[in-house]
Amino acid sequence: MTQFNEAELTDAVIGSFDQTPDARARFLLQELVKSLHDYVRKTNLTFEEWGAAIDFLTRTGQTCTASRQEFILLSDVLGVSMLVDAVNHRDRAGATETTVLGPFYVGEHRVTPHGTDISASLKGEKMFVQARVTDLAGVPLAGATVDVWHADDEGFYDSQRPSYESEGPSSRARFITNSDGRFFFRTILPCSYPIPTDGPVGQMILQTKRHPMRPAHVHFLVAAEGHEPLVTHVFIAGDDYLDSDVVFGVKDDLIAQVEQRSDPVMPDGKLASGPWYLMTYDFRMKPGAGVAPRPLGTIVPEPV
Amino acid sequence: MTQFNEAELTDAVIGSFDQTPDARARFLLQELVKSLHDYVRKTNLTFEEWGAAIDFLTRTGQTCTASRQEFILLSDVLGVSMLVDAVNHRDRAGATETTVLGPFYVGEHRVTPHGTDISASLKGEKMFVQARVTDLAGVPLAGATVDVWHADDEGFYDSQRPSYESEGPSSRARFITNSDGRFFFRTILPCSYPIPTDGPVGQMILQTKRHPMRPAHVHFLVAAEGHEPLVTHVFIAGDDYLDSDVVFGVKDDLIAQVEQRSDPVMPDGKLASGPWYLMTYDFRMKPGAGVAPRPLGTIVPEPV
Repeated sequence: MTQFNEAELTDAVIGSFDQTPDARARFLLQELVKSLHDYVRKTNLTFEEWGAAIDFLTRTGQTCTASRQEFILLSDVLGVSMLVDAVNHRDRAGATETTVLGPFYVGEHRVTPHGTDISASLKGEKMFVQARVTDLAGVPLAGATVDVWHADDEGFYDSQRPSYESEGPSSRARFITNSDGRFFFRTILPCSYPIPTDGPVGQMILQTKRHPMRPAHVHFLVAAEGHEPLVTHVFIAGDDYLDSDVVFGVKDDLIAQVEQRSDPVMPDGKLASGPWYLMTYDFRMKPGAGVAPRPLGTIVPEPV
Repeated sequence: MTQFNEAELTDAVIGSFDQTPDARARFLLQELVKSLHDYVRKTNLTFEEWGAAIDFLTRTGQTCTASRQEFILLSDVLGVSMLVDAVNHRDRAGATETTVLGPFYVGEHRVTPHGTDISASLKGEKMFVQARVTDLAGVPLAGATVDVWHADDEGFYDSQRPSYESEGPSSRARFITNSDGRFFFRTILPCSYPIPTDGPVGQMILQTKRHPMRPAHVHFLVAAEGHEPLVTHVFIAGDDYLDSDVVFGVKDDLIAQVEQRSDPVMPDGKLASGPWYLMTYDFRMKPGAGVAPRPLGTIVPEPV
């Protein structure tokens, strides 16, 4: 029998993967076939629509470079990245919430002394960040590594700037918690920013009348021995886009009140040069194991 | 409320497309979100699996060129192309069955006199093709255009050869049916061939222990006024891969008995140079309208 009706066609494609050696790969592929076929049947997808999808996927792949991952952006704006995060973190009662890693993590940062101004070369409003890393019972975790990165006052990450290769990192550092589980540093107040809108994903967002904005945030990747690595952001209370993050990454637990201050002295006893903001946040780590995510840029291959 | 549980997250992403101006685009996107999210939840997709999917899609996009469409190949081997064909041709009782266009259609061919040997420059066993185009009642359709293309005796299409630009088409032509609805030409007997296995899609086929073969066939694209354009293949009875076409394109109605002959004269009265094969096929056209598909290569953009 070579001829299939629609249901037989689906069964034949599923059956074609029966010999896949790895059971998990077989399951994922066969479920993918079911899902794709159900979609085509439910939507009665036309040839033109199918062709537009092929075209969109092709352009999305061809927009990826060593420093840009348009398929991750697609996953982000369709809420898939946050859902993958959710299904892999179903039991975090009491621990700090997770959110997306995002495409701007470039791997381990250089260890930096507490108090350093990591945005010294940038304009912007000054911010002092003081934070603590504890276990679920509030016991401080000393020696934890904390990678930090955020966008500049124009909404760009250092790695998006042409000068990144020559000038090195900015608004990006690693701190090690002290015996109290504390770390602190100076930087600028980040602002909300749009995802790139010059590629197929950003264009789709604009065409569907969604806004492309992410609310202002600082990324944190915290790793402490005996605990699950924590990938998260801290968002800044009052941002206009907290309720409509284009990548659906906000959680209530991750919003910090960032206070405007005019004290002449900052929390580490050094003089302030003018008004400044204070961000305070405590990270509660979940016991367990696991490896920190690799930088997503590393999975982008060269074009063939 | 900014924080979502898994179901709320899906609802939020669906809702984010509510302002999409085109109702059909809105429907397709919102169903896509449901489908993708259901897949992630059902499979409990891990971060590593998600990363592998991002990597696969990226490489698939980056394998596409002006003469290669790896995403169409992916659609083909997952049975999606044949399913799109099926849902768009649900009522063809009495008409010749359709199948995939495939990635090797390059657009309108040059009109060629009946009897021409369209594979004159190739080695291979000689074949004479005689065919007729009729309506559903068997009434001949004169003046119909018939585009024909097939692989050579090594399983490659002319457009896959580096010499294609300089030497022009081979095993590829357009015929116009005569007053009897007939057309005929000479060529070589095509053979079964593998899809490209040097890209991510072919690699996936090999890794899942599927074979990459398509059974031997000749492509036909028939267009007659007052009738739906017909995109199909004629397959050659007895081929080893008729029951396991890697793109699921075979239909019983499309398999022709190709007879081996030793008559010294071919059906058009001209001498044969040795043994030859005879393919005979009648195409029954469905009344209706519609435009012939555009060549799929035309939707491949240049890399950005």
